[in-house]
Amino acid sequence: MIATTTSSLLTDLHCSQCGSTHNAFVRQTLSSCCQAPLLAAFNLDNSGLQKADLATRTKSLWRYEELLPVLQPDNQITLGEGFTPLLSLKRLADTFGFSHLSLKDEGLNPTGSFKARGLCMAISKAKENGEQACIIPTAGNAGVAMAAYCARAGLEAVVVMPRHTPDAFKEECIGYNANLIQIDGLINDCAAKVHELNQDGRYFDVSTLKEPYRLEGKKTMGYEIAEQLNWQLPDVIMYPTGGGTGLIGIWKAFHELKALGWLSKEQRLPRMVAVQAENCAPVVDTYLGKQPNSKQYIGKPTLANGLAVPRPIGEPLMLNVLRESGGTAIAVSEEDMLAGVSDLCRYEGIFAAPEGGAIWAATKKLLHQGWLQSTEHIVLLNTGSGQKYLDNVKGQWRR
Amino acid sequence: MIATTTSSLLTDLHCSQCGSTHNAFVRQTLSSCCQAPLLAAFNLDNSGLQKADLATRTKSLWRYEELLPVLQPDNQITLGEGFTPLLSLKRLADTFGFSHLSLKDEGLNPTGSFKARGLCMAISKAKENGEQACIIPTAGNAGVAMAAYCARAGLEAVVVMPRHTPDAFKEECIGYNANLIQIDGLINDCAAKVHELNQDGRYFDVSTLKEPYRLEGKKTMGYEIAEQLNWQLPDVIMYPTGGGTGLIGIWKAFHELKALGWLSKEQRLPRMVAVQAENCAPVVDTYLGKQPNSKQYIGKPTLANGLAVPRPIGEPLMLNVLRESGGTAIAVSEEDMLAGVSDLCRYEGIFAAPEGGAIWAATKKLLHQGWLQSTEHIVLLNTGSGQKYLDNVKGQWRR
Repeated sequence: MIATTTSSLLTDLHCSQCGSTHNAFVRQTLSSCCQAPLLAAFNLDNSGLQKADLATRTKSLWRYEELLPVLQPDNQITLGEGFTPLLSLKRLADTFGFSHLSLKDEGLNPTGSFKARGLCMAISKAKENGEQACIIPTAGNAGVAMAAYCARAGLEAVVVMPRHTPDAFKEECIGYNANLIQIDGLINDCAAKVHELNQDGRYFDVSTLKEPYRLEGKKTMGYEIAEQLNWQLPDVIMYPTGGGTGLIGIWKAFHELKALGWLSKEQRLPRMVAVQAENCAPVVDTYLGKQPNSKQYIGKPTLANGLAVPRPIGEPLMLNVLRESGGTAIAVSEEDMLAGVSDLCRYEGIFAAPEGGAIWAATKKLLHQGWLQSTEHIVLLNTGSGQKYLDNVKGQWRR
Repeated sequence: MIATTTSSLLTDLHCSQCGSTHNAFVRQTLSSCCQAPLLAAFNLDNSGLQKADLATRTKSLWRYEELLPVLQPDNQITLGEGFTPLLSLKRLADTFGFSHLSLKDEGLNPTGSFKARGLCMAISKAKENGEQACIIPTAGNAGVAMAAYCARAGLEAVVVMPRHTPDAFKEECIGYNANLIQIDGLINDCAAKVHELNQDGRYFDVSTLKEPYRLEGKKTMGYEIAEQLNWQLPDVIMYPTGGGTGLIGIWKAFHELKALGWLSKEQRLPRMVAVQAENCAPVVDTYLGKQPNSKQYIGKPTLANGLAVPRPIGEPLMLNVLRESGGTAIAVSEEDMLAGVSDLCRYEGIFAAPEGGAIWAATKKLLHQGWLQSTEHIVLLNTGSGQKYLDNVKGQWRR
C-alpha cells in the first residue's frame, strides 16, 4: 500500500454489478468478480470538508483533490484541465423561446475536449501504480488526451483509432510521440485490436470503464456544475453519450455531494438526457425498448465521432442514470447536428464539436415534443471544441 | 457619459506619445493629438482593493474587473477567457539543463489563443459604446477571436486576412458568420484594405492599438502571472512578438500592480524578451540597430503567422519595454520553431502554435549564448494552440 500524502479520501473500489469491495491501492482493471466496471468510494461522512474550503483552490479539477484518487502530489499530471466555464446562452434562448439555457464549454480543456478530465486521472493513477506504457482504443479525442498526458508523464502511449477519423486527431497523437495504429471499423473494432496487441499484458489498458479512474476525472463536471450554480442544480442536463462515462460520472458526483452535505438530501437532481447520433444510437434503442441491450448493435460512423460507440460497456449504468433521474434518450440526424454547430457559432460565438451541435439540436427537438418546458433551466454539456472536426464541417455552415 | 455600474476604476486615456489626457467615456481610436495609441488609466491610489479580494472571484480575466474598462455588467461579453494555467515544464527543464521553466498556456482560451483577451475587451467596449459593426485586419487569430465575440455580442463582423493563412482560421470566421475578405499580402496589406472599406466610418476599427482596449484585455496576462506566482515575478518572460500588445500590456500590468501596492515598489521586474521569426523580424532589427525603425520593413510569411507583422504601430512602446526591463529581442528560423513545437509536444503534452515553438527555440538559443542563466525562473508565454496550424506542421514532427 502506498503512503497517502495528498488528502485523498479514497477508501476502496466497488464492483458496479455485485457491489463487492476491491482494493483501491493496487492496479485494478475490471472487477475480478463480475468483469464489470469498478467504482471508487471515498470516506465522505464526517470528512470535515466544507464548500468554503474551495474558495482559494486552484482553478482546475484538482481543486477537489480530496474527492479524487491520486495519493501523491507528484503524480497529479496536469495540463490545467477542468473548471471550464458555464456560459449563459442568452441569444440562443431569446431566439428559440427558452428562458434559461447554459452551456458548459469543455472545449476549453487541454487537447480541446472533456476527455482530458478522464485521461489526466487515469494516467496520473497509472503513473502512481508504476505503469510504463498505456494503450487505448478511441473514437478520437480520448486517444489525443491519453497521448498528451502520457507525454507529460513520460509514459509510452499506443493509440488505436478508426482509419476514418479526421486527420487532426491522428496528427496530434503523432506529435505527442504516441504509436498510432489505424483500424478499419469503429471503436469496438479498435478494442479488439487492443486486446490482440496486449495479449502479454505489457500495456496498461485505459479503455472506457475498464479501469476505475477515468470516471473519477469525468465526475468533476458534476462538482463544477453544482459549484458554478452556487450549489443549486439545473432542471435538465443534456449530455452527448458515447461511452457514457461523463453521464455516469456526473450522477455519481451529485450523490457524493449529497453524502458530503454540500447538496441537501432533499435537493432534486436534474433529469439526465442521453443524446446520440441516429447513425449510432444503441442506448436510445435500448432505452426505448427496441432491443434488450446493445450487445449486438451495429453502428455507422457519424460526424460526432465521440458518439460512434456501438456497444458501450457502461450501458447498464447509463440506463440506470436515465431511469433514476427521470431523464430520456434521443437521437439526432447528421444534418441536425451540423445545423446545431452552426447555431452555436453564429448566435453565441462557440465553435462546438458535432457532439455539442447534437445536444443543441436535441434540446430544440425535446422542447418541440413538449418533454422540455421553455421555463426550465437546461444545461448543455458541450464535450469539445470543433477545431479537430473542421475538415468535416467546412462549407456546411447554415446561412 | 455612461453611468458607472461595475466597479471599474477607469478614469481617462493618455496619449502614449505626448501624455495628454483624453475622455475615456466616448468612442476613441488613436489619439487626436499625435495619432498614437491611447493608454487607459485607472484610479489605483487608495483604491482599497486587496489581493485577498480575488480569492473568490470568477476564473476568467473578469476577476480583475475594477482594473478593466467595461462599465456595465451587461457589456462584459465573455466566453470564459483568461486565467489560463501556468504549467511547470519539468521534463523539458530536466532534459535541456534548466532549473525552473514555466509555460503560460494561452491555447486554453476561447478560440484557442491569447487574442481572445484583447478582443473580448475591445468588443465589450464597442458594444458599450453603441457600435453596430466591427472590422479588423488580422494575421489569423485576432480575426477569429473578433468574429466569435461579435457573434456573442450580436454585432456585425468584417475580417480581412492574408490569403495564405491556413484554412482553419478562415473557416472558423465564416462559421461565426463574419464577412471574410482575403488579401494577397501580409497584415499591413490587410490594414490598407480595412482603410479602403471603412472610408465612410461605418465600421469600428479594432486594429491593434488603434483602439485603447485590446491592450487592457492583454494586460491581464501580467496580472495572472503575478497572482499565479503568489505575487512574486519570474526573472525572464519570453514573449512571441507580432503586434506586441501583450508585451506592452504585461509591462503595463506590472506597473499597475505596483501602484496598487500588490507588488512592492522594490520588486524587480522580469527581463522581457521579444521573440520573432527570421522571416519577419522588424523589432529585432530595430532593437539591434540595423534600422532606425520598421516603417519601411519588408517581411515574408512565416509558419507563426501571428509574428508576420512587418510594421507594428506599437514598436516604440515595445522597444521601451525591452530597454526598461533589460530584455532583448531575438529571431528564430522556421526550422527551429517547428522543432520547438515538437519538443513541447513530446516532452510536455502541450501542442503549441508555432509562436510557442519559437519561444522555446529562442529560450534554448539564449541559454546557449549565455544571455539566460540556467538557474533563472523563465516563463514562456505560449500564445495559442497548434490546432489551427495543423496543415502546416503535419508530417514535420521531430523523431
